[in-house]
Amino acid sequence: MPNPTAAMLVIGDEILSGRTRDANMHHLAQKLTEHGIDLCEVRVVSDDAPAIITAVRALSGQYTHVFTSGGIGPTHDDITADCIAEAFGRAIDVRDDARKLLADLCAARGVELTTERLRMARIPEGAALIDNAASVAPGFTVENVHVMAGVPRVFEAMVAWLLPRLAAGQRRLSQNLRVMQAESEISGPLRDIAAAHPDLSLGSYPFSENGQFGANIVIRGTDPAAIDAAMAQLKEAFPNGTT
Amino acid sequence: MPNPTAAMLVIGDEILSGRTRDANMHHLAQKLTEHGIDLCEVRVVSDDAPAIITAVRALSGQYTHVFTSGGIGPTHDDITADCIAEAFGRAIDVRDDARKLLADLCAARGVELTTERLRMARIPEGAALIDNAASVAPGFTVENVHVMAGVPRVFEAMVAWLLPRLAAGQRRLSQNLRVMQAESEISGPLRDIAAAHPDLSLGSYPFSENGQFGANIVIRGTDPAAIDAAMAQLKEAFPNGTT
Repeated sequence: MPNPTAAMLVIGDEILSGRTRDANMHHLAQKLTEHGIDLCEVRVVSDDAPAIITAVRALSGQYTHVFTSGGIGPTHDDITADCIAEAFGRAIDVRDDARKLLADLCAARGVELTTERLRMARIPEGAALIDNAASVAPGFTVENVHVMAGVPRVFEAMVAWLLPRLAAGQRRLSQNLRVMQAESEISGPLRDIAAAHPDLSLGSYPFSENGQFGANIVIRGTDPAAIDAAMAQLKEAFPNGTT
Repeated sequence: MPNPTAAMLVIGDEILSGRTRDANMHHLAQKLTEHGIDLCEVRVVSDDAPAIITAVRALSGQYTHVFTSGGIGPTHDDITADCIAEAFGRAIDVRDDARKLLADLCAARGVELTTERLRMARIPEGAALIDNAASVAPGFTVENVHVMAGVPRVFEAMVAWLLPRLAAGQRRLSQNLRVMQAESEISGPLRDIAAAHPDLSLGSYPFSENGQFGANIVIRGTDPAAIDAAMAQLKEAFPNGTT
């Protein structure tokens, strides 16, 4: 059976303006790989309702899961929850269980549950809450879209709670051979070895280091014996490679 | 006149598998902001021809420019050039000027111009070459799509050559106020200040540091005086903020 598929939608201007370097995408990609869910696409869009709604609908129809990050806080530019509601034609309002989470938190901290804080309890109709072990205000799942926070510590806490609740696929295993040769010198043998292993994926990821080009050759698959066999051939072809 | 718009398409499995953390997206976002081109969307897709072709067509129709990174090297998984040709219904073959670049490089290094190396001279019909000051093998522009390498050093060299040749927009200026308060405590005043400055964009980017939440409030716009005025109001509302 093929693995579940996924897309991620990163919402917010900070990556697009170059202010911030992405962290959540990298974290989710690693966790999904461990869980056997294939991350097939990532989109980054700004805090713009039509862009968010269009992307959510497109990705939701195409993949098993969509994971979003960003835009569910209490400020005026946090519009993700409303956009998700609109994307699926659902009503949205403050929900009692989410309100209670925030009310309890405010009581414990001795602060007032303001209208602004209550914004974080606005949940689209029929959604399931996603637990937030880092800062309480919940994420939520509507259909196959999992809506999470943008702050990395909160995003990671939500992913940690959510992933064990999603059906796992076959974990993709990988092995890596690092070769300090330009790709044009290794591409011939690499092509032959890739062709001999149609059930594996062989990728070559070039890099430059101290002005010299090299490549990481990555074998991916689900059968450890097949990966070992391909790695043996790679090592024979590129004896100076290091694992 | 509104600024030119742009999308970036990152091609390759290494970010989606979690092996690599993106660098090119962050670099391009910063350079486009400096140049006055608004980066509106980023997509990351795997080395999969239908996914690449679909994304190129969608983004090319929607934005002034599309910048791609990855998949133009000499290995079997480098399929970007062929996908771009197919996306625009153009032929693709080894081109004389690109072949000469590679032939001269091989001659200088005393290596053979193999079929594998020649793959990097395959250019879609009617494309303009993008200079590669880092490693010679060129990128290319077809219509509004600028096709560049995935290795950061090479990608950056190509961006440095390309951007001065693209029409610049108004540079977006920004100022930042860093506030060590949770967003729910600042969102009321922030909303009012944002509403008072419809020509500016005020964004709040929460973070956590040593277990405490804070936010960077970023004012963006093109009129320095308007940004100064909004910053003065922000500082009055959040006197403990730091710039």
